[in-house]
Amino acid sequence: MTEKFLQPADATTIPRFADIATFLRTPRVEMSDAIDIGLVGVPFDIGLNYRSGPREAPGAVRHASRLIRRVHPTLGIEPYALCNVADLGDAPINPLDKDLSIAQIETFFAALRQRDIRPVAIGGDHTIPTPILRALANDSPVGILQIDSHADTLDEMCGTKANHATFMRRGVEEGLIDPGRVVQLGLRGSRFSADDIAWGYEAGFTIITFDEFEEMGRAAAIRRIAEVIGTDRTYVTVDIDGLDPSFCPGTPVPEIGGLTPRDTQVILRSLRGVDIIGADISEVAPCYDPTGITSVTAANLMFELVCLIADKIGER
Amino acid sequence: MTEKFLQPADATTIPRFADIATFLRTPRVEMSDAIDIGLVGVPFDIGLNYRSGPREAPGAVRHASRLIRRVHPTLGIEPYALCNVADLGDAPINPLDKDLSIAQIETFFAALRQRDIRPVAIGGDHTIPTPILRALANDSPVGILQIDSHADTLDEMCGTKANHATFMRRGVEEGLIDPGRVVQLGLRGSRFSADDIAWGYEAGFTIITFDEFEEMGRAAAIRRIAEVIGTDRTYVTVDIDGLDPSFCPGTPVPEIGGLTPRDTQVILRSLRGVDIIGADISEVAPCYDPTGITSVTAANLMFELVCLIADKIGER
Amino acid sequence: MTEKFLQPADATTIPRFADIATFLRTPRVEMSDAIDIGLVGVPFDIGLNYRSGPREAPGAVRHASRLIRRVHPTLGIEPYALCNVADLGDAPINPLDKDLSIAQIETFFAALRQRDIRPVAIGGDHTIPTPILRALANDSPVGILQIDSHADTLDEMCGTKANHATFMRRGVEEGLIDPGRVVQLGLRGSRFSADDIAWGYEAGFTIITFDEFEEMGRAAAIRRIAEVIGTDRTYVTVDIDGLDPSFCPGTPVPEIGGLTPRDTQVILRSLRGVDIIGADISEVAPCYDPTGITSVTAANLMFELVCLIADKIGER
Amino acid sequence: MTEKFLQPADATTIPRFADIATFLRTPRVEMSDAIDIGLVGVPFDIGLNYRSGPREAPGAVRHASRLIRRVHPTLGIEPYALCNVADLGDAPINPLDKDLSIAQIETFFAALRQRDIRPVAIGGDHTIPTPILRALANDSPVGILQIDSHADTLDEMCGTKANHATFMRRGVEEGLIDPGRVVQLGLRGSRFSADDIAWGYEAGFTIITFDEFEEMGRAAAIRRIAEVIGTDRTYVTVDIDGLDPSFCPGTPVPEIGGLTPRDTQVILRSLRGVDIIGADISEVAPCYDPTGITSVTAANLMFELVCLIADKIGER
Amino acid sequence: MTEKFLQPADATTIPRFADIATFLRTPRVEMSDAIDIGLVGVPFDIGLNYRSGPREAPGAVRHASRLIRRVHPTLGIEPYALCNVADLGDAPINPLDKDLSIAQIETFFAALRQRDIRPVAIGGDHTIPTPILRALANDSPVGILQIDSHADTLDEMCGTKANHATFMRRGVEEGLIDPGRVVQLGLRGSRFSADDIAWGYEAGFTIITFDEFEEMGRAAAIRRIAEVIGTDRTYVTVDIDGLDPSFCPGTPVPEIGGLTPRDTQVILRSLRGVDIIGADISEVAPCYDPTGITSVTAANLMFELVCLIADKIGER
Amino acid sequence: MTEKFLQPADATTIPRFADIATFLRTPRVEMSDAIDIGLVGVPFDIGLNYRSGPREAPGAVRHASRLIRRVHPTLGIEPYALCNVADLGDAPINPLDKDLSIAQIETFFAALRQRDIRPVAIGGDHTIPTPILRALANDSPVGILQIDSHADTLDEMCGTKANHATFMRRGVEEGLIDPGRVVQLGLRGSRFSADDIAWGYEAGFTIITFDEFEEMGRAAAIRRIAEVIGTDRTYVTVDIDGLDPSFCPGTPVPEIGGLTPRDTQVILRSLRGVDIIGADISEVAPCYDPTGITSVTAANLMFELVCLIADKIGER
Repeated sequence: MTEKFLQPADATTIPRFADIATFLRTPRVEMSDAIDIGLVGVPFDIGLNYRSGPREAPGAVRHASRLIRRVHPTLGIEPYALCNVADLGDAPINPLDKDLSIAQIETFFAALRQRDIRPVAIGGDHTIPTPILRALANDSPVGILQIDSHADTLDEMCGTKANHATFMRRGVEEGLIDPGRVVQLGLRGSRFSADDIAWGYEAGFTIITFDEFEEMGRAAAIRRIAEVIGTDRTYVTVDIDGLDPSFCPGTPVPEIGGLTPRDTQVILRSLRGVDIIGADISEVAPCYDPTGITSVTAANLMFELVCLIADKIGER
Repeated sequence: MTEKFLQPADATTIPRFADIATFLRTPRVEMSDAIDIGLVGVPFDIGLNYRSGPREAPGAVRHASRLIRRVHPTLGIEPYALCNVADLGDAPINPLDKDLSIAQIETFFAALRQRDIRPVAIGGDHTIPTPILRALANDSPVGILQIDSHADTLDEMCGTKANHATFMRRGVEEGLIDPGRVVQLGLRGSRFSADDIAWGYEAGFTIITFDEFEEMGRAAAIRRIAEVIGTDRTYVTVDIDGLDPSFCPGTPVPEIGGLTPRDTQVILRSLRGVDIIGADISEVAPCYDPTGITSVTAANLMFELVCLIADKIGER
Repeated sequence: MTEKFLQPADATTIPRFADIATFLRTPRVEMSDAIDIGLVGVPFDIGLNYRSGPREAPGAVRHASRLIRRVHPTLGIEPYALCNVADLGDAPINPLDKDLSIAQIETFFAALRQRDIRPVAIGGDHTIPTPILRALANDSPVGILQIDSHADTLDEMCGTKANHATFMRRGVEEGLIDPGRVVQLGLRGSRFSADDIAWGYEAGFTIITFDEFEEMGRAAAIRRIAEVIGTDRTYVTVDIDGLDPSFCPGTPVPEIGGLTPRDTQVILRSLRGVDIIGADISEVAPCYDPTGITSVTAANLMFELVCLIADKIGER
Repeated sequence: MTEKFLQPADATTIPRFADIATFLRTPRVEMSDAIDIGLVGVPFDIGLNYRSGPREAPGAVRHASRLIRRVHPTLGIEPYALCNVADLGDAPINPLDKDLSIAQIETFFAALRQRDIRPVAIGGDHTIPTPILRALANDSPVGILQIDSHADTLDEMCGTKANHATFMRRGVEEGLIDPGRVVQLGLRGSRFSADDIAWGYEAGFTIITFDEFEEMGRAAAIRRIAEVIGTDRTYVTVDIDGLDPSFCPGTPVPEIGGLTPRDTQVILRSLRGVDIIGADISEVAPCYDPTGITSVTAANLMFELVCLIADKIGER
Repeated sequence: MTEKFLQPADATTIPRFADIATFLRTPRVEMSDAIDIGLVGVPFDIGLNYRSGPREAPGAVRHASRLIRRVHPTLGIEPYALCNVADLGDAPINPLDKDLSIAQIETFFAALRQRDIRPVAIGGDHTIPTPILRALANDSPVGILQIDSHADTLDEMCGTKANHATFMRRGVEEGLIDPGRVVQLGLRGSRFSADDIAWGYEAGFTIITFDEFEEMGRAAAIRRIAEVIGTDRTYVTVDIDGLDPSFCPGTPVPEIGGLTPRDTQVILRSLRGVDIIGADISEVAPCYDPTGITSVTAANLMFELVCLIADKIGER
Repeated sequence: MTEKFLQPADATTIPRFADIATFLRTPRVEMSDAIDIGLVGVPFDIGLNYRSGPREAPGAVRHASRLIRRVHPTLGIEPYALCNVADLGDAPINPLDKDLSIAQIETFFAALRQRDIRPVAIGGDHTIPTPILRALANDSPVGILQIDSHADTLDEMCGTKANHATFMRRGVEEGLIDPGRVVQLGLRGSRFSADDIAWGYEAGFTIITFDEFEEMGRAAAIRRIAEVIGTDRTYVTVDIDGLDPSFCPGTPVPEIGGLTPRDTQVILRSLRGVDIIGADISEVAPCYDPTGITSVTAANLMFELVCLIADKIGER
């Protein structure tokens, strides 16, 4: 049987533990117009100010994603029947040059956009939405769903403007983000100062702290996200530390008491129908993840995002 | 003081970290008519198609079960005051011969049944209910409570009929399972095809996917289990991957977003009064469990099952 | 800028991974009248009867607490603007002499009290509230909030009266604890005998087993705590095994199915306004905590307690 | 600059932690006549009778081999300047069918041979030389350098003839191995019976137990290997348990007191000039290798073997 | 076939990963006159002043010893053909009472001696030779081979005389040890004071520091041991920290730069013919041994000692 | 008793597992003229091009160094009787700015030099000798003993001149290093190109590759070091990857087959009498060191260096 679209490695002939590991077992190809969804690693982690490690995440998530199968259990979506999904390798970065790397990442994602490829990226630290948004949203600002324990709205950290704690402010300043279509979900954790998250309120973000999330319940939070974000062009960014570190310990800056993987799955599933232009899952640090569960979780969330985007593409 | 029944090692004279490790610190004896509940290892793990490791589970659960005490905290059951509970060692298996091992396991459990010993087994992979049910249920089909992320109703996998993904179909085909008295709880995870779990619906199983479980709530799920299964002869099988892998990471095929150990405890406790003819806890892979928490959980679930069966025996 | 009070190391000049690790990055000073809240290690772990390890907890929690910032995210409390908080080192103990160590701990905490320093201690095993309460509550009995899976009301264990399972009985017998103002929260786990927790009921404790906690819900439990304990002099003791061991695996005697870190945070936050005379977080065993999440949790709970006490001090 | 031969990923543009992991960062291509040296995984591990795990080795060694550079430090060989080296993926295997897998492996290696590709394989357990030799040596018997703690000359184990303890006997029986050109190096470890290794002596093998190795010294052992094996067609098989398990803990059956990685490097280097028709490195079990050092060692030994074979090819 | 002596579990019918774990897979029986060599755990670890953990060693070494087979590879000794070897469980100890435990250990070993059982013990910390020697050597002093990084000749530590740093002094003072027949091998590591090891010289011990061992070479060290100790009644005590902690990391007080497992094997083998009255392997801390290699090493050394003693018994 | 010099925490009153962890348990003080030897952390690790992690090394080595006692076992040196040794905290660095950090490190070490404090630093990656030498050797070039697997003589890496692979070239270029008094010991590992280490030969370095080290033997290597370096002003730099990664797995770029910790100890001890102006131990990555043995080794090597310098200072 010939398939219309690229297919992941077939587990009936290549066991899931066999051969090279690619994202979701999709083919590793170079970017081209034929690709609809590009799975991409961004092994950049020199934007961090506490523990390091996410440069290893693309490799670890490729490995963990070997166990993901083909069909979504709840939504019934089979992405590989709807469009071309492929592993496009990693964005180029220079491990010794932060600013150059940020430029390289932007160039890489701009090339994806030029070919109308929607990226689902595995970071890297949470600096990476800055260059990604510059590439994907430089003509008109997009909505953002940010799952995170930290607001990432500092003006600067350690005297620099580009790092893992500033992308949301940069994105608004640069006109890449529509503040009225932003939801920041899961914020918590001790703060450097009382107003760490204040900037977002002033900018017009909808902030659902973890306290608020717990109080309103997940269903209400999902409704709120839908109201704020709607279905227009949206970028989804999951800082894995938005999840509870008992579930996802492999992360540079763990903050106890967060979302469960289940919460995150269900919330992402609620985005069906939204025009997701791209997404990233960041701040996975395999060197702090002895059971591999953080990478397994990231791999599953990647599959959720691929299903959503494929479903939207399939509507065309 | 002489006890009427076999007693576990006394922690006041043998600290819980001391001496050989047996299941729940019960005596390691050979099977005999005197035994009522047999704690048994089934170190068979060559029915797997992804990661391996459960051959080590009986050893690891014996080690972890050293911390279990004598009395159930909620139900108040003290099994060792009600009947003879003992560690009967491991079922014989041949690590190089799948089919022979399956036959050996059946023979072993048939011998238990002949002596009217109710087994609580630690697998091994989830192939093992096939031979166990052949031994325990070959005269009339039984009800099944299956806690699992996967339906295990494939017809074949990798070209074989006997493996860790088929026991529920085999059991129905062979007349060992009463489909009308089956509950499959916790199903989730990406699927090979859209109808991975369809066979069970057609066979008449009651399926409570994790989505449904969450929506209905645990109490309603417990009521549904009671309605479907009743109190007649029932086999309980816990694939540890039915639980969330953040709680039980040591398993071959983790699927995020599942039951908690607490959920599982409470659901098992609801079976008080059911005629449980045997049970297994399978798919524990100690080599992926650096904290040991998966084995600790399995040991606690073993104690739950022992209490339920002892309580039923004590009614006589 | 000169600060009125001692300040933790400034993360803008000393990265959080840099320099010696002290509790919450506060200065390591010797005790003096100037100090209001003393952060103290009590590396005593020879009161245990199963696994060992908490002697390493003060070191591990100091290390983990490096990531805690300055301001409480929910309550808005900034303790270092309200009073002097400092790391006072570890209480002296003798690793080869249990009774001497208990006396040394008492002497150390008596010296803290004499200087009107409120201690937040990192144990050590759960023997340590005995000497701490002797030092802090020897003039009038105090209320107790005990988060724990075990009641710690045995009369003796292994033939000794002073160990990690007896401090609540000792405290009542010695007039240090007001039984009418005690809440024991989270009790669960298999028992040595049916009446392991009965002593507390008879003494007049308010016991909220984990079964009851789940049934009533967290909000009701918080109300019950407030009713029983009020706002008078209270000691807070958190046995980390009160939390679910999937969240906090690094503990000597794990009992599945407990409180989450989030539950614990929210419950502690409800104590705002209570006159907390001291607190401990005990039974953290770093050698069973490969991800460090248990220490991270303990560090966060320490910050919760510091905020509560500082807030109360700031009222003056 | 265009290169004459396939080149590994260039670390100056793709950092060594970036992109998909292939063996030694060589291109992942399908087998063809253009390839000279094929790097192949053989994720077969159902020939084991103690611990399991080597099915994960090809993946783990691909990951670890990312740090290997291009030029041999001692021999000065640069394999990628001499011939085409590529990652050809994994041999097909069926995780549920031992005999079928063995046949599949033979077919795969026969196809390599037909194309005159010399394989360097990462096992898999030590059953795999049986099918590999059937493919590579079925016309005339070859010499063998076996680095191993076990002789693998049993007639059968657990009632089967094909498993990880029999390949040397099978190879002689089937005329694939020239007993006069065999060296077994590193044998040690407790034995099932006194004559576990006797079969090899009778067959005419040269056996250098670890006792003898230590006594004669490495240089003399190298001379003895050269004398026995000469330079004709030779297969090299490294059971990683031939190395000391303190250096390589990730293996199913560790035997203390063996070769160091350095010993193994130097011994392999002494084979320069030998006509190596293929090689495998087997019995690496990543699930028992928390530091990854076993996979790092296997990756380095793979590079040694690639250099030797490339150097020989380059002579043509 | 009926065997004359007790036999370990047969790996051809019970795989080595199956059933309860006993030392070397020997039967777990109660002590009796029929037993010649008693394998015993001594889970005492409250004599330590730095890290803890050896209470878990008997369990971990039982688990690790499952891979040991029946015949010594170098000496050819098959202990189970020479005498009765059995696992006699663990000596009773009280985890909360150091002095009581020491008395209990003495009583247990005295009972062994009364039955003419030669013990090979797995500690426990290195306090345990004190009560063992009191039981085994109270009529006439014995020779000692001590492999250790520390001299254990302090007079007291932390104000106590009985702990893991004093047994050699206690043994001489109590007339249990013949100083002229003592070899201390492997001493090294930073010292509390310049004369930490001076007491032994004055007592007449033969001390081979690691510096001296390296300089003289292993063969000369073996000759020196033979000269000093001869073949009369001798007790062998291996503190696992005598070995290099890279090989045996699971120990309370690691000292870099020590003996290899191979060195230790060869040195023990040189004791063939010596009248070994008993032996212990102590200071194994499984909680610091993530690969299990320390326990594997201890299990192998236990087998070495069993072979030596069995060989001597077989001479009779 | 009052001591003439600063003393480390006394283990008889503060157990070695107690209180804050400082380097070698010395007091944490601010730099001043009174200090002779400054123990310093340099948590800089953004000069790496493969795995990251050494920013955590100062913390981990402080923790591990708790077990070091006061007196050198072989040399008999007691540094705390000879001069003032103290933990001076960590050099300031900015985790987001490589060049700024390098300048900050230089400033910090210049301040040490101004006070005539000899530093023993724990890195950080192997970029740090560049700023350290700029501070310590800017008036006249010094000799260098470099223990390392890599030559660190590249001109640039990833387009930058300052990183962990260039300090030796930079030092010569800047006149900080006397090439005629350089020994590079332990070089090995696959190379990017054939001339990776050629620059050093041309510069006049004495290079002892690991091959040469093994061939000549340690004693000859020590003699060669003495000949080349003499006793004049010398800087000692230990890249922990110079040691075999089986002994020290916690390092960014492991190269199998290197020096043992014992080799390193003995070689360092041979420097007694040399005028060591400072030293560093770099490239320790705790996140890849689950047993902690790499940090334990680094701590011991730090003590070796402190003893050497103190001994020299004591001569005055």
